[in-house]
Parts: sequence; structure tokens; C-alpha cells
Amino acid sequence: MNIDILTLFPRMVEVPLNESIIGKAVEADKLNIDVTDFRKFSTNKHGNVDDYPYGGGAGMLLTPQPIFDAMEHVSQKNNGKMGRVILVDPAGKRFNQKMAEEFSKEEQLTFICGHYEGYDERIKTLVTDEVSLGDFVITGGELAALTIIDATVRLIPEILGNKESAPGDSYSSGLLEYPQYTRPANFRGMEVPSILLSGDHGKVDLWRRQQSLKKTSERRPDLIHKAKLSVADLDYLADLKEKK
Amino acid sequence: MNIDILTLFPRMVEVPLNESIIGKAVEADKLNIDVTDFRKFSTNKHGNVDDYPYGGGAGMLLTPQPIFDAMEHVSQKNNGKMGRVILVDPAGKRFNQKMAEEFSKEEQLTFICGHYEGYDERIKTLVTDEVSLGDFVITGGELAALTIIDATVRLIPEILGNKESAPGDSYSSGLLEYPQYTRPANFRGMEVPSILLSGDHGKVDLWRRQQSLKKTSERRPDLIHKAKLSVADLDYLADLKEKK
Repeated sequence: MNIDILTLFPRMVEVPLNESIIGKAVEADKLNIDVTDFRKFSTNKHGNVDDYPYGGGAGMLLTPQPIFDAMEHVSQKNNGKMGRVILVDPAGKRFNQKMAEEFSKEEQLTFICGHYEGYDERIKTLVTDEVSLGDFVITGGELAALTIIDATVRLIPEILGNKESAPGDSYSSGLLEYPQYTRPANFRGMEVPSILLSGDHGKVDLWRRQQSLKKTSERRPDLIHKAKLSVADLDYLADLKEKK
Repeated sequence: MNIDILTLFPRMVEVPLNESIIGKAVEADKLNIDVTDFRKFSTNKHGNVDDYPYGGGAGMLLTPQPIFDAMEHVSQKNNGKMGRVILVDPAGKRFNQKMAEEFSKEEQLTFICGHYEGYDERIKTLVTDEVSLGDFVITGGELAALTIIDATVRLIPEILGNKESAPGDSYSSGLLEYPQYTRPANFRGMEVPSILLSGDHGKVDLWRRQQSLKKTSERRPDLIHKAKLSVADLDYLADLKEKK
């Protein structure tokens, strides 16, 4: 996969990209990332990239010229293959695991990281996907782009080592994860549930499934409605409801 | 405000923290951030911080000891004032602007950044808030913590300069933002809506309000139901519906 990132804060993305899973993917030649500082493409003599909004209002907007020219540079570098161009915006489509899976199958992703109050609307003509991380405002697109890249890259086959293995983690079952425990069996008086020490895999699996069902029904009933449930799962949930 | 971050990847958080708005808040003495590498608190002779899950399964879990000892160190440093302790977890409460506003009023926030497959459930006894960025899986809590810190810190009074001013941005009205434009009025044949060049502030305000209403009703009808709407707003939305 090739990822391009257009930003005014290259260091904000470069260092986290070199750490953790993303850095490993780059080292393993599974991933190439190019960071482009679009301020360098400004034709303004002061290198400005922002200007006042037409019609008045607080804050500054990113002007179209530097981003359009930086995108042309990226397109030439990639021999015209632009794939999906992602703009992070609170008004975009909510990012989720399904979108991460979709992105992980692409050969090319480009992220445009906005900053300041916003950007000139015409910049959106360059964009294929407006994506939102959630109902909150951040000062720039960089942290959102990094988060989306991390969620996406870890799904590329052979990226995750044993330590960070993907099967069994949240969302693969459509339910929230069951509680997990590691050594010691007793830590400062807090004990690991004895069933996990029993060596009975059937019982452990059942306990985990029921813990997932319980947690999901309490915290995210919306997910229960979408999950694939067995008759035994439904019986357990009915029992839980009765006990209340 | 004082923020503590417990992580295995200090550089992943330190560099982004020095850039952009968060760095400015630190420079302006509005914010202090301490990053603690909890691997240094491991009593294991190899400095291990993870172990296999009881009951079997893929992946490694963070063990309680290094995090408990690192938290004691942080608590002593802060004279016992621990405030809210935030663990980012997909099963947590969804982070949103309201939570950012709440966090921005705190004097002390501590973030525990998990990694690998997960963490020993007993670590949650240290935590006051389990927070989720959304329905997706990332390899560690660092990017999520940075995102939450950015959304929170920008709400501390006097942090935002003119360039990144808060009033008027998304969510302050409960609606998605209207399209914005800056110079030039014609960029590569794409023109700024003439009303924004009219100088008629009443008309500009009305156009913006209607654009916000239109976009929000198309993309996020759930927000329309929660927003404070005037009779004129409701009339406009009814007209829109009729035209379809």
C-alpha cells in the first residue's frame, strides 16, 4: 500500500508513523508513506496557506491553491494513480471497522489534513471520501488521519505479529470483548476468575461468550441487535433480563 | 491543567504534543504534560510488561504490576491528586464534544495507553472513565489519547488564537458547518457563491443557516432532532422536504 499525507505539520505525522505497528509495516516493505508539506506549494510570497472567509466570520480558511498544486505533485509522483482521497471532517461519514477493512484493500490512499477554522469548499472537489472520527472538533486532521491509518494498516495481511494478533479482538465477533487476565493469579488481593485457571476450554469459551454478551447488552444494545447470535446466546440474554 | 500519559511509546505522544495547539498551550503555561514510560516500572528482570492470557487465546495482555506502580509514581508526583483516569477502550463511552467540554474543566487528567491485544482486567480498578473513540480497533491507546487531548485542550479559555478560533465551528450550533470560501472568487473556473460577495450580512447569515440545515438534514438527521430550531428553520426544512 502507498499512503500520501498532505499536511502543514509534517513532524506531527512522521514521528508517530515511525513508531509502533505503522513503522513495522514500512520496515517490512508492506507500506510506503510519503508526507507532503503543502505550505511548500504556496505561490504566495509569504508562503501563506490561509485567508479570511468570504461573508465574514471568525477564523481562517485554507485556500485552494496550495492544496491543488500539492495534489498535482502527488498525482505525478504516483503516475496518475490517486485512488481514494480522504478528508477528515466532522460532517463526513463516520469511520468504523468496516471502513478500515475497505481502506486496507486499497493500493493508494491520500489524506488531506485540514487545519485552522476549516477549508475552502472547492478543496472538496479533490476528495473521494469525507470521513469523520466522531462528534467532536479537533484542531487539525493529522491525529485523525494517523488514527485511521493505524486502524487500516493493522488489517493488511502479515503486518501484525503474534504480540498484536488480530483474531479475537473487538468487533470481529460483533460483540464487545470479554474481560481478560494474565499472571499473577492473585494481584494485590484481586483474583483471576477461577474458571480461567480450570483448564476446561469448553467452559472457558462459554464464560467468555457470556461475558461478551453481558457487557455488550449493558453498554451497547445496538450491537446486540446486529450480532449473529445462537439459540444458546439468546437463552443466556433472556436469563439475564429475567434476573434484573 | 495537568495531563499525565502512561505509555510504552513516549516518542509517539511527545512529538505530536509539541506541535500545533497543544504545544502552544504548554508554552503559554496553560498546560503541563508529563509522559511516563511504564516499562521502566516493570519489576520483571527483562523489563516485560505483557504476558499470555489465562484461559488461552491469541495475543498478549498488559500485566497489572508495571501500570499499578507507574500510577503510584504519578499519584505521588501530583501530591495524591489524581482526578480522572482515562482508559481508551472500544467498549468505553463514546467520546464526543460534550465529554471534551467536561474534561476541559478538570485540573488533572491521566491517560493509560494500552497496547497489544489488551490488558489485564484488574487495571480497570485504577480507571474512572473508559472512553471509546468509535467502533474500530487501533493498535494502541496513544493516538486516541492524543485526539482526546487535542479536542479537550482547545476548549481551555485563551488557548485558541485568532487563526483557530472556536466560535462558529461545528457542534457549537448543534448543526454541521455551512460551506466556507476564501479568495480567489474564481479558482480554476470554480466560483464562490455570489451571495457571500454581496456584503449583505443578513442574507449571508440566512444562507449559511440554511446550508447548515440542508447538510445536516441530509447527512445527520439525528442531529436535526436535537438542535434548537426557529420557526424559520422549520419552515425551510419543510420546504426542502417538499421539493424532493
